[in-house]
Amino acid sequence: MTCGLFIMKVWVTGKVMKSADKKRDPEISIPMRTLSNANYNKKKRIIEMGDKAATRNFFDLNKSKNFMQTMLIASACKKLIDEEKTSSIRGLYYLTKHSIKGTNEKTFNDQKESDPIIEDVEVALEALREQLHVFADSRGSIAGNLTITSRGDEIDLRRMGAGGMSIPGIVEPDVFTFKKCDAKFILHVEKGTVWARFNEDRFWEKHNCILTHGSGQPPRGVRRLLHRMHNELNLPLYCLLDNDPWGYYIYSVIKQGSINLAFESKRMAVPDAKFIGVRSKDFEEFGLSDDVKIAIDNKDIKRAKQILAYPWFKGKKDWEKEIAAMLQHGFKMEVEALLTNGISFVTEEFVPQKLKQRNKWLD
Amino acid sequence: MTCGLFIMKVWVTGKVMKSADKKRDPEISIPMRTLSNANYNKKKRIIEMGDKAATRNFFDLNKSKNFMQTMLIASACKKLIDEEKTSSIRGLYYLTKHSIKGTNEKTFNDQKESDPIIEDVEVALEALREQLHVFADSRGSIAGNLTITSRGDEIDLRRMGAGGMSIPGIVEPDVFTFKKCDAKFILHVEKGTVWARFNEDRFWEKHNCILTHGSGQPPRGVRRLLHRMHNELNLPLYCLLDNDPWGYYIYSVIKQGSINLAFESKRMAVPDAKFIGVRSKDFEEFGLSDDVKIAIDNKDIKRAKQILAYPWFKGKKDWEKEIAAMLQHGFKMEVEALLTNGISFVTEEFVPQKLKQRNKWLD
Repeated sequence: MTCGLFIMKVWVTGKVMKSADKKRDPEISIPMRTLSNANYNKKKRIIEMGDKAATRNFFDLNKSKNFMQTMLIASACKKLIDEEKTSSIRGLYYLTKHSIKGTNEKTFNDQKESDPIIEDVEVALEALREQLHVFADSRGSIAGNLTITSRGDEIDLRRMGAGGMSIPGIVEPDVFTFKKCDAKFILHVEKGTVWARFNEDRFWEKHNCILTHGSGQPPRGVRRLLHRMHNELNLPLYCLLDNDPWGYYIYSVIKQGSINLAFESKRMAVPDAKFIGVRSKDFEEFGLSDDVKIAIDNKDIKRAKQILAYPWFKGKKDWEKEIAAMLQHGFKMEVEALLTNGISFVTEEFVPQKLKQRNKWLD
Repeated sequence: MTCGLFIMKVWVTGKVMKSADKKRDPEISIPMRTLSNANYNKKKRIIEMGDKAATRNFFDLNKSKNFMQTMLIASACKKLIDEEKTSSIRGLYYLTKHSIKGTNEKTFNDQKESDPIIEDVEVALEALREQLHVFADSRGSIAGNLTITSRGDEIDLRRMGAGGMSIPGIVEPDVFTFKKCDAKFILHVEKGTVWARFNEDRFWEKHNCILTHGSGQPPRGVRRLLHRMHNELNLPLYCLLDNDPWGYYIYSVIKQGSINLAFESKRMAVPDAKFIGVRSKDFEEFGLSDDVKIAIDNKDIKRAKQILAYPWFKGKKDWEKEIAAMLQHGFKMEVEALLTNGISFVTEEFVPQKLKQRNKWLD
């Protein structure tokens, strides 16, 4: 029996069934996934979910639809686990959508209704959706000094050609394991096109590391893999991101987790991750020209101020200075901007320098 | 010397240099990439570029900036080829952007200016940008009964675990070659989540095929790879796409090429590709419920009518009927809709049935 199935059985048997058996109103308790119930744990340095929870009762007219939807999603997950199959969140919507007998009422009208219920089931069970055999869309690639096994296939990530291995949506230990690892660190870059430059220059071989990207904001599979490699293989994680609010935000999510999905931080966040991306002062330090400047707009300014106000950025002098410098400059810069100094400047000069100078890392 | 470099030298030496040497106004001729210069070749069944061309002269005030931009992009491509490196189109923008000495004038103000010039250079040289070492963003994965080599690494696509291999942006024969192939056909599916279902059910093993997806509209690397596998490995290509205008359009681009990039059809289009996606009549034939219906809106209707008017759809009775049926139904369906008949219905019933019944293929 997989771990997911075990959790599922305990939950359903323990809570819902017992109340039903005793002819009491069946109820489930769902921790609240609101901003007011997401707290930054300063000691663990991750965003955590608080204790607030809401109860859903079957015999409450306002809540019975929600109660039934929750049971429906939970039972579909159980079926997936029983059959040893996985599904996307869109797939789960179709798997559970039907008309309720004798009515015109649908279990779900669209995916916007089923997605939050999946999250409800995750938090209620304290399980990742991936443990319940449900995955989000997969994006991102990996190559480097590591051998893994995925669904029984042993894959040498040192021999993955120009494209790398697509990082699957589910990388839980029962289907994805680490074998021989010679790497000393992980370099995570923001975009696939930048990843291609590093892979083509065989950066991972020269610097003995693992190279990943997540096509922008990394999806759950990529974040979970970064977390597992960092913790199980003891590899430091360095993030090469843009000098803009979007880059800061990606870093924030990789490092501390997201407010939305605070309950999963402990299995996804990497609080020790370091930012070695483009910094405002790099404009002068690396002698970049005006050509690399992208003017910031009101949206950027608003976003930057929001990020500054996050409790996990607030009070960090380096980050406060960094974001203030970007706002004062009035422009942002992409990693690709370094191309103006040469095709392989980023792999041969910029990142090697950053890696050597610990005092230049943003934390 | 690579093929791209050879073409580049012949062009520059032959046309631009000769006129300059003779102290005549240097000029280049760029085939026009307009709708009026894109024709459907009924015999070859692909969209082709016509003969119309525009001339760019250096000593013409209206054209000299364009002339110089073209030379700049061409020379950056030559540098990439010389250095045996590749770049994204965004990278090429940064590589070529600079202020013109003694002025405030930039060579390019943003990427919207450099992208069309890259296409100009492609058509002028009759080369794919990939041959000039420039790639678009890469998306999409592959697994199946095939071994390939990519940049010197031999990769067995039968042992790629849950994620598959990321299809690189450049799959030209000098860096990407085919080795042992046992597959009898290619199944191309629209989305990564559907691909994951087929891969998990080991469809490619059971049915002896190659499995690809392109994350929606497949990027150039995926289309080029489909073209090469179809032609060099003699494999029929079947496309599993949604029953909606977007699905029809994806099919149209895979099969005939796109109007925008008519000049590349001969190296990207697969006129023999077959549509084995969801059809309007499948709603009844496979006993689907109302739950799968997604109401079409005015945009869908407009798009469907545009597609019907394409010369390569026009007059094809099967397609005319198919699109009319969708419009009459008033709803569209995704491949995921088949999940309402069971998690693996699509891999165990739907596609195997479609593959057997040649008369159900749309061509």
